[in-house]
Amino acid sequence: MTPERYARLRETLDRRQPDLTLLTEQIHKPRNIAALVRTADAVGIHQVHMVWPWDKHRHYSGTAMGSDRWVNVNRHESMPAAISQLKESGYKVYAAHFSDRAVDYRSVDYSVPCALVLGNEKKGISADTADLVDEHVVVPMMGMVESFNVSVAAAIILAEAQRQRAALGLYDKVRLDQEEYWQTLFRWAHP
Amino acid sequence: MTPERYARLRETLDRRQPDLTLLTEQIHKPRNIAALVRTADAVGIHQVHMVWPWDKHRHYSGTAMGSDRWVNVNRHESMPAAISQLKESGYKVYAAHFSDRAVDYRSVDYSVPCALVLGNEKKGISADTADLVDEHVVVPMMGMVESFNVSVAAAIILAEAQRQRAALGLYDKVRLDQEEYWQTLFRWAHP
Ligand SMILES: C[S@@+](CC[C@H](N)C(=O)[O-])C[C@H]1O[C@@H](n2cnc3c(N)ncnc32)[C@H](O)[C@@H]1O
Ligand SMILES: C[S@@+](CC[C@H](N)C(=O)[O-])C[C@H]1O[C@@H](n2cnc3c(N)ncnc32)[C@H](O)[C@@H]1O
Repeated sequence: MTPERYARLRETLDRRQPDLTLLTEQIHKPRNIAALVRTADAVGIHQVHMVWPWDKHRHYSGTAMGSDRWVNVNRHESMPAAISQLKESGYKVYAAHFSDRAVDYRSVDYSVPCALVLGNEKKGISADTADLVDEHVVVPMMGMVESFNVSVAAAIILAEAQRQRAALGLYDKVRLDQEEYWQTLFRWAHP
Repeated sequence: MTPERYARLRETLDRRQPDLTLLTEQIHKPRNIAALVRTADAVGIHQVHMVWPWDKHRHYSGTAMGSDRWVNVNRHESMPAAISQLKESGYKVYAAHFSDRAVDYRSVDYSVPCALVLGNEKKGISADTADLVDEHVVVPMMGMVESFNVSVAAAIILAEAQRQRAALGLYDKVRLDQEEYWQTLFRWAHP
């Protein structure tokens, strides 16, 4: 490994945000998953959470997606299980979801430990999930089309999370714990 | 047409921003073009500009993309032609492009008449185009991946443009000229 490559791996790990994550509800198009993981990496997300659609994609492997080299993918059996695990770990859970209680995505705090839930390409966020989360956030839409592509909505919201965290200096100090940091460095350096 | 539908068409036209636009340089994947146009509609863009790749997509029709119902697509023969036309009409031209002179995308003014140039999926923005534009803007990336998907980068930058314009009340007054407004309403109402 070149010194430049080593420095780049370290720099990336120095900025990882272990307390910022995504949770996808039955998102199934590989290109959407790939774009979500790519954007997650770019804002410093270390691990994402996913609940696959039961019917088809049970054996969808992380590796098959091709974009999980830099971001860990944690698969859960159900949305209630994933959400309660996140809540027990102290995360706020925000769903990107249109509803009567939805607020503008810029009005919530992404500098606290938090997870952003994204809904299925066709069906969106389920009613059960909508009930379980802390907040519903929306990106305002001024046109005729009713929703963004899911990876676009996620990117707009995550750019705001990145802005808030950068303003507070959260990318300027190492946030991963030492064990995770060095294990990840080892794995990235010896694929 | 229902009264609700009529109201929605009017509401959308009331918020259209004729002086905010996109210009794509040889972007060729239909799903990227579709996502770009969908996002453009959502931030109130009325017309986008495109230069197709010469080799393959000469006869790529607007209609084939399926997402141009609400946003006009203006095709140009070359990037220099498109850029000088925009500049002559008083637009600032910003390229989403990594370079030594690039600035953070949040530091430029999108409330003036302006066009955002997006580059080809593989080759990015050409050197000639980079020379011709007013500014290069980048979305900071904190991870291992070197660039966003083009529709993701566009969405993050356009969300900032939308934020700036909303803060200045530019969505609260009709910005389209009357002829364009009523012609568009007529076309949308009688497809
Ligand atoms: C294509 S949308 C699903 C649309 C679905 N018909 C619905 O009504 O929810 C897929 C996901 O993208 C996210 N999304 C899309 N546009 C959004 C917006 N403007 N604000 C917040 N989330 C959005 C949501 O998580 C949504 O579940
Ligand atoms: C996939 S990228 C092209 C990458 C190409 N290899 C390069 O070096 O330019 C396609 C387009 O998306 C836009 N883009 C992607 N990531 C960006 C970022 N972080 N900041 C600004 N624009 C970006 C640019 O317009 C770029 O030309």
